[in-house]
Amino acid sequence: MTVSVTREGAVLTLRLDRPEKKNALTQAMYRALSEGLRTAEADPEVRVVLLAGGMDFTAGNDIADFAARKEEGPSEAFHFLETLVGFAKPVVAAVRGHAVGIGTTLLLHCDVVVASEAARLMMPFTKLGLVPEAGSSMLLARRVGAARARWWLLSGTPISGHEAAEAGLVTRAVPDDAVEEEARAVAQLLAALPPGSMAETKRLVLAAEKEALETAMRAERESFGRMLRGEEAQAIFREFLNRSG
Amino acid sequence: MTVSVTREGAVLTLRLDRPEKKNALTQAMYRALSEGLRTAEADPEVRVVLLAGGMDFTAGNDIADFAARKEEGPSEAFHFLETLVGFAKPVVAAVRGHAVGIGTTLLLHCDVVVASEAARLMMPFTKLGLVPEAGSSMLLARRVGAARARWWLLSGTPISGHEAAEAGLVTRAVPDDAVEEEARAVAQLLAALPPGSMAETKRLVLAAEKEALETAMRAERESFGRMLRGEEAQAIFREFLNRSG
Amino acid sequence: MTVSVTREGAVLTLRLDRPEKKNALTQAMYRALSEGLRTAEADPEVRVVLLAGGMDFTAGNDIADFAARKEEGPSEAFHFLETLVGFAKPVVAAVRGHAVGIGTTLLLHCDVVVASEAARLMMPFTKLGLVPEAGSSMLLARRVGAARARWWLLSGTPISGHEAAEAGLVTRAVPDDAVEEEARAVAQLLAALPPGSMAETKRLVLAAEKEALETAMRAERESFGRMLRGEEAQAIFREFLNRSG
Repeated sequence: MTVSVTREGAVLTLRLDRPEKKNALTQAMYRALSEGLRTAEADPEVRVVLLAGGMDFTAGNDIADFAARKEEGPSEAFHFLETLVGFAKPVVAAVRGHAVGIGTTLLLHCDVVVASEAARLMMPFTKLGLVPEAGSSMLLARRVGAARARWWLLSGTPISGHEAAEAGLVTRAVPDDAVEEEARAVAQLLAALPPGSMAETKRLVLAAEKEALETAMRAERESFGRMLRGEEAQAIFREFLNRSG
Repeated sequence: MTVSVTREGAVLTLRLDRPEKKNALTQAMYRALSEGLRTAEADPEVRVVLLAGGMDFTAGNDIADFAARKEEGPSEAFHFLETLVGFAKPVVAAVRGHAVGIGTTLLLHCDVVVASEAARLMMPFTKLGLVPEAGSSMLLARRVGAARARWWLLSGTPISGHEAAEAGLVTRAVPDDAVEEEARAVAQLLAALPPGSMAETKRLVLAAEKEALETAMRAERESFGRMLRGEEAQAIFREFLNRSG
Repeated sequence: MTVSVTREGAVLTLRLDRPEKKNALTQAMYRALSEGLRTAEADPEVRVVLLAGGMDFTAGNDIADFAARKEEGPSEAFHFLETLVGFAKPVVAAVRGHAVGIGTTLLLHCDVVVASEAARLMMPFTKLGLVPEAGSSMLLARRVGAARARWWLLSGTPISGHEAAEAGLVTRAVPDDAVEEEARAVAQLLAALPPGSMAETKRLVLAAEKEALETAMRAERESFGRMLRGEEAQAIFREFLNRSG
């Protein structure tokens, strides 16, 4: 299995586990993540979800799997994001190594992100002839200010975990070997607090940007689909697949 | 008196003065603060309000007083917030020691906040079975980014004045014994500038988030009342009052 | 000429060049900037605009020129801002020395800002009996948080390039003699990425705050015109012109 699901007390851990591909995400993995979240939401004994990888968080979409997808209806990635965005219980992320593309943008929908100081976050959408997704065209500027957000989104330049914490993109950066322990401690701390208050607090926080976020995600989706079929992206994908094929 | 009101030149100081209870706020104190603000607004010689405490800013709502309140119509705390949120003249806050609950969230409605590096800000709403108030479910994320805001709101973890300044929750952190002097200097500096421009600048700044803030405060109020009557909060209050009774 | 326009590869540089007046902006200079931008937008070989000054970025509006303007219809400054705000290609700014008034607020509409650590940014609107413009009443708080934004806008206090970078007002602060080189490197990096993706990414980012920005700019404009004709500003301008006349 490429996504492992384990429960320890009130914390359900969803762990990306495809190390040979740096946890590159396939449609099957997105489906497993969505199911994990739905299980966690339905189970009253689960109070917090911990989302983790291994040496790497994720290299982003698996390009071969991504390119193979038949363009019919919303993707599994889309369903996963929908589930994560409105998720009622706290989500804590533990990020080591690479967090590429959706690997960074999904963090904008987690409640607490513990990153390795040496983590390498990246949103290389423009390099692929694409555009920001997962609401990042709007959320990133709100988290780190437009001066940093536009630079990161336009250039696709890598961001260290240290920089990400300074800027407010992640909650905290710690030494690499402390990430897992710290994230688990955060998850357990949140799991011990009154669950009704946690859910209601998260609901209020989400409500404050819900409408703007939905508008942004709609605009991104329309644009992403168009850019993906466009000449810039197609040429880049062909080159990528030829090179690695 | 538990709130002292003094005027020095164009600066009116409202000082919380109930040190034996760490300036815990009673309905009477909220009323005195609202009256102080209204006096300041009406008096053309007052150009800036300085809001201060003593060794502590405030321990937040006085729980006994809070629990005793008959649930009929808006509270004095509500009236105070309404007055502060739309206040036309600059408000400077000087924060030392503890700033708990509304003691932190009211800072989101001050124009300049000078905090002690050693101050201890806290929003322990979830620990009490409650939810964020005073617009903090929306404003906090706008000030410090969602990665820090959600962690602070969900966990109720204490924030030092130093951290608060780094994150942008307060304007500046200074050594504890410099807080009062620094805050007074800021207030005097602002009081010396053209009052028409000050009022108009503040009006424009407030207008930019007015609608979103009102929506957030309405949602919070509805939720806060419901949570307060709920089982989580009632059990916590009973325990607190038994323990301290 | 007081604005020079040069193209090197895909980067068009608009350089303020009126050093004897610290690049204070006249109506003619605003017109030249607007024309430069329109040229850059129309020319498919131009992919990025670099906006630069010299030892100083700009001292802001030339007060004599500003005061001489007949109050009929939108100003050239207004047209320049309109063009910059919706500009479709990335704009990089290189800021050394003074950046006063619109010299700071226009940076809020650039995509990447490289500032000298020793730069001196200032928004002294209240000191002139005026109010924030160029959307700064709304954008500044979104970039740096309200605690810093309100202090800076109300007090007009100078901000070093170093502080500006820490707060997220500019993208990066570097030693003074590295500003030009660094800004050019950023511009070239962005110019080498797929232009369709760049334009589309910028469009999505702008869309996320377009409506709020337009509302804020409308409110500012109405207020600015009123304040400019008001007694506070007129007295300050008279004194300024007498003193320097």
